[in-house]
Amino acid sequence: MRITFLGTGDAGGVPCHGCDCTACKSARAVADYRRRPCCALIESGTTRILIDAGLTDLTERFPPGSLTAIVLTHFHPDHVQGLFHLRWGVGASIPVFGPPDSEGCADLYKNHGLLEFHRLAKFESMKLGDIRIIPLPLIHSKVTFGYAIEDCHGARFAYMTDTVGLPPRTEEFLMEWGPHGLAIDCSHPPQTEPKNHNDWILALGLIDRVKPRRAWLTHISHTLDAWLLDTSPPLALDIHVARDNVVIDVGTQEA
Amino acid sequence: MRITFLGTGDAGGVPCHGCDCTACKSARAVADYRRRPCCALIESGTTRILIDAGLTDLTERFPPGSLTAIVLTHFHPDHVQGLFHLRWGVGASIPVFGPPDSEGCADLYKNHGLLEFHRLAKFESMKLGDIRIIPLPLIHSKVTFGYAIEDCHGARFAYMTDTVGLPPRTEEFLMEWGPHGLAIDCSHPPQTEPKNHNDWILALGLIDRVKPRRAWLTHISHTLDAWLLDTSPPLALDIHVARDNVVIDVGTQEA
Repeated sequence: MRITFLGTGDAGGVPCHGCDCTACKSARAVADYRRRPCCALIESGTTRILIDAGLTDLTERFPPGSLTAIVLTHFHPDHVQGLFHLRWGVGASIPVFGPPDSEGCADLYKNHGLLEFHRLAKFESMKLGDIRIIPLPLIHSKVTFGYAIEDCHGARFAYMTDTVGLPPRTEEFLMEWGPHGLAIDCSHPPQTEPKNHNDWILALGLIDRVKPRRAWLTHISHTLDAWLLDTSPPLALDIHVARDNVVIDVGTQEA
Repeated sequence: MRITFLGTGDAGGVPCHGCDCTACKSARAVADYRRRPCCALIESGTTRILIDAGLTDLTERFPPGSLTAIVLTHFHPDHVQGLFHLRWGVGASIPVFGPPDSEGCADLYKNHGLLEFHRLAKFESMKLGDIRIIPLPLIHSKVTFGYAIEDCHGARFAYMTDTVGLPPRTEEFLMEWGPHGLAIDCSHPPQTEPKNHNDWILALGLIDRVKPRRAWLTHISHTLDAWLLDTSPPLALDIHVARDNVVIDVGTQEA
């Protein structure tokens, strides 16, 4: 299974408008250091699933027919705002799966255009082409799902954002399931009371308990990037800070 | 007064995702034919007002301090979606004026970040730097204001979108006020029952009655662009189809 981190930033992104911290200055100077809205493309065989739709150029990136489905973690604008434009396209409808959020975001449900919204249920697995996804409840300010994602070759990848900690049943599921790869919300440097998002300590603690083969920190704010540049904290070899456009392969063959 | 049409498209834009009509094919081949979300920059002296915020790259286009204010016609996503990102900037707050819409769009009011929302009242004039704006009610699917805009040299420009026709009091106001320039919603080619937006016939009828010195059609769909390419309908010399990035000067000296 191939994963492309198309976006690894928090809602403000990096660089953050008006900010002159080390991270924002670097990102203005070097395009590779920029972070766009958090999302990922999952590919296996001919199946292509976009997790979250906050990139505002989806109509340019994905020609008609190029996505099997879009799967949403939740309906905050930085995770769905690309749909506002995409919906007005013409041609075949695009299936969009997400958590059971009766509000959605703005008028997306009412004026859905070519998007076909479907609600998922927690822990109920769903097959999309060659890929099976299992929605796992997260802890956030809006109803939010992480996803356990498995392809027909047995490659297992978990995508867990946005969240602060994990509900016990979700954490137990992941520990039993044993992902080859895990992407986890790590929005902030160590904080006294993390809210809505993991800080560095919560994220590393979760990785330590779930024990994926490899892990990627994502949904990263400019304050975390600046803290990383300032302090260079040690990280185990199999834990990475994700970057936009990084492509990884996870699966059984890598063992 | 200087007006820059930063965007002249309807919600789907041109090219429209998945469409192969003449207009969409041209816009894919030639960047000048593209139409982004409808908005305009109004400048007089050191005052810079952005009318509508649907462009998704506002953080790149407008460095901190470069806008006196943002003025919204209404809270549909294609007119406000750029605020979802801009709000998370750091530094001085940005005043955002709009119609009294208790809903707004998504969580913009709740999580306003550095945006400072203010509600305008119909026909109540408001001074923003060197520019005075008067909100004029329009007819749309959400509470919507057009704006009569006047600078300290007496230049008068009216920006009227999104609307289908005009309420009588708004039309009377414009006829008495006598704008030097008028930008008017003209989303569609002639239709039997225009809904939410002007078609070609309604827009030209309004221009004929309001009698601005010059007029620009805006909020243009790919179907109108294709119809224009196919039929080349005659247009009076002082009526123009707006294009993205076109800059115009209106004022008393042009008489």
